[in-house]
Amino acid sequence: MKAEIVATGTELLLGETLNTSAHYLTGKLSSVGIEVDYHTTVGDNPERLEQVLRQAIGRTDLVVTTGGLGPTVDDLTKELVAKVLDLKLELDPLSLEQLKQFFARRKAPMPKNNEKQVYFPKGAKILPNPIGTAPGAIIEKNGKTVIILPGPPFEMRPMFDTYAWPELQRIIGPHTERMNERVLKVFGMGESAIEEVLGELMNLPDITMALLAKRAEMHIRLVARSTETTSREAGDSLDRAEKEIRRRLGDKVFGRDQETMIGIIGQRLIDKQLTIATAESCTGGLLGAALTQEPGSSVFYLGGVVSYSNSVKQGVLGVSEENLQKFGAVSEEVAKEMAEGARSKVGSDLAISTTGIAGPDGGSEQKPVGLVYIGLATPEGVHAKKFQFYGERESVRQLTVQAALNEVRQYISNSERRL
Amino acid sequence: MKAEIVATGTELLLGETLNTSAHYLTGKLSSVGIEVDYHTTVGDNPERLEQVLRQAIGRTDLVVTTGGLGPTVDDLTKELVAKVLDLKLELDPLSLEQLKQFFARRKAPMPKNNEKQVYFPKGAKILPNPIGTAPGAIIEKNGKTVIILPGPPFEMRPMFDTYAWPELQRIIGPHTERMNERVLKVFGMGESAIEEVLGELMNLPDITMALLAKRAEMHIRLVARSTETTSREAGDSLDRAEKEIRRRLGDKVFGRDQETMIGIIGQRLIDKQLTIATAESCTGGLLGAALTQEPGSSVFYLGGVVSYSNSVKQGVLGVSEENLQKFGAVSEEVAKEMAEGARSKVGSDLAISTTGIAGPDGGSEQKPVGLVYIGLATPEGVHAKKFQFYGERESVRQLTVQAALNEVRQYISNSERRL
Repeated sequence: MKAEIVATGTELLLGETLNTSAHYLTGKLSSVGIEVDYHTTVGDNPERLEQVLRQAIGRTDLVVTTGGLGPTVDDLTKELVAKVLDLKLELDPLSLEQLKQFFARRKAPMPKNNEKQVYFPKGAKILPNPIGTAPGAIIEKNGKTVIILPGPPFEMRPMFDTYAWPELQRIIGPHTERMNERVLKVFGMGESAIEEVLGELMNLPDITMALLAKRAEMHIRLVARSTETTSREAGDSLDRAEKEIRRRLGDKVFGRDQETMIGIIGQRLIDKQLTIATAESCTGGLLGAALTQEPGSSVFYLGGVVSYSNSVKQGVLGVSEENLQKFGAVSEEVAKEMAEGARSKVGSDLAISTTGIAGPDGGSEQKPVGLVYIGLATPEGVHAKKFQFYGERESVRQLTVQAALNEVRQYISNSERRL
Repeated sequence: MKAEIVATGTELLLGETLNTSAHYLTGKLSSVGIEVDYHTTVGDNPERLEQVLRQAIGRTDLVVTTGGLGPTVDDLTKELVAKVLDLKLELDPLSLEQLKQFFARRKAPMPKNNEKQVYFPKGAKILPNPIGTAPGAIIEKNGKTVIILPGPPFEMRPMFDTYAWPELQRIIGPHTERMNERVLKVFGMGESAIEEVLGELMNLPDITMALLAKRAEMHIRLVARSTETTSREAGDSLDRAEKEIRRRLGDKVFGRDQETMIGIIGQRLIDKQLTIATAESCTGGLLGAALTQEPGSSVFYLGGVVSYSNSVKQGVLGVSEENLQKFGAVSEEVAKEMAEGARSKVGSDLAISTTGIAGPDGGSEQKPVGLVYIGLATPEGVHAKKFQFYGERESVRQLTVQAALNEVRQYISNSERRL
């Protein structure tokens, strides 16, 4: 089953409103194996909207529209769907009653033009709107289905979930293909490097594989199609593919599906009863902010020092004047002293430090923008690693946070291996 | 001039990735009077993408594409634009050189398939990509313009702003209608409160006014239309409206257009030669991260302490055991001691502290989730203010940062008034 999502509304074409509805609906339709081939957005212009609807109904099996159900003359979705499907508009008495009640509850007179909202293409199933004045509708004709939904996401979502979803399940039936999805998350490898290592795995017969570049991560998305009766086989295929990918990429794979870098680190620290502190220069607090993003982080994160100036590096963290003079604030030596200083000052098991040149200014030939040292102090000692990042200031800072978190993750993995 | 934005990428049609680029580009195009008639999203399917591009080039004057510039065989945007416009693909030697340098800087071998990224339709102007490996392009043929941009927003935006925007200005020429826009930024007033105070100003004949709710700010967006020759009159109208709005809202208006809360505070601190430190509990480092967001922040921001645990509050900041016991970590007394501790430890002129319950757990009847105290230590003394925020953990943390920055802004404004 192929689908198109059509959004109408001039506000979407002025850059004022972000079309989150297409994203939401696509996720829902994909999860039951409906292939969304197109999203189309068009303004409240009758000719263009009619042409878009005609094309959508022509090239797909299911068209879901959002918007254009308001009381004004601009709002034309139902009218044009009726025209394209060659159906008459009819008043729905029950919807009219509900509309009257809606205004009665608000002790407001019902404006005459709201009546327009209770006319629907003949034969449509009405989808009630518990929040607003515009009901939606589902129309089936000649093997095509059109679902008409309101524009505001807070009206659209409950209407779709409560009233359209069960209808859609009925229409697709139990034997429709479903998409069984798994996402593996990778840190420290680029798109083409992963592609080269995976090689022929990218073309498995029973799995569709795609690589998605996130800011500091790469996601490998695996999809196995099945019907309801063959979903176990699909799960087995995914397991086999995941196992082989993990064998090839090793601990570059840090998580899967809903797992996040920070979530995994938090869980590992809690499991091992380890506490951690931070000493941040170029990240200015972002690393602490990342570590405290999820509730419950106070169990493992004790706190830290933002030593943005050298005076704080010396005065609070105890970094030596000598190393600052000799190697500069952005150096392996200072990263190590920062981590050690935070560990002893805060009294944690681990401490992680960042010092680097976030840019855009402050770089030199020896120390270019994007140069970052990350230090890690542990009960076994302290070390620091050099990184060279690229991009804008905020990218360098975010990449530094991700790399620092990854250092913590690798330390825990390695210490598990040593035991 | 009519435009269509075409996004390609199967991830957009699986509900994984939200298409923020169409929104961003639409805002930019609208601001120079280009009418965006359609957004179309299509997967990495050659037939469908070709058909969409052909239709877009047929029905509009300007087509902007995002995505499909990667190194893999799936990535086909340039190839299909060339096909539709009947142009050959040619290797761009300069882009090849830059691509080689990109990999050389990373000390990584250049995978063979990346070479695909430096072929462009003949006659295209190349748009460099300072962040990733995929350059973009602008192609003009038979009165039609196609702008080809990469998919990831953090690559697309700087490329569009830096390289495509000036070209677009040249293409539209001086006589097109422009939208002269001004945005006034308000902190500490809600939508309906602003609406009431502005009253009849909301309906000026020559200005379209809209209120946009941002996370912690309200933006008043004023638009006056003009051609290039009447832009002075439009500017005068905007000046008059801005003056009257500022008169009515007072120092709730903290900035305009590109000005940000943090930018304004940084400038004021530099002007007054004041330094600042942070002491953060519930914000975990976000306040330091905000203060160091812009380059040059080391002039005024010295550093701070993330005192997430009570042990760090006591051990590093010198908060008294007695106050922690008697009033709890989330209290006016502790907020004041944190700010004083940071000020003396770091040796700054000002210090700002945050302590609160970010949630979702940890709240009680006396101290509900969202309760936050913000302390400010200055040469004149120390005080703390109580706030009650609502929303999810991340909202509470962000609102706390904004409120803390606003405390600093108001302190500087008031001290200016005292002089």
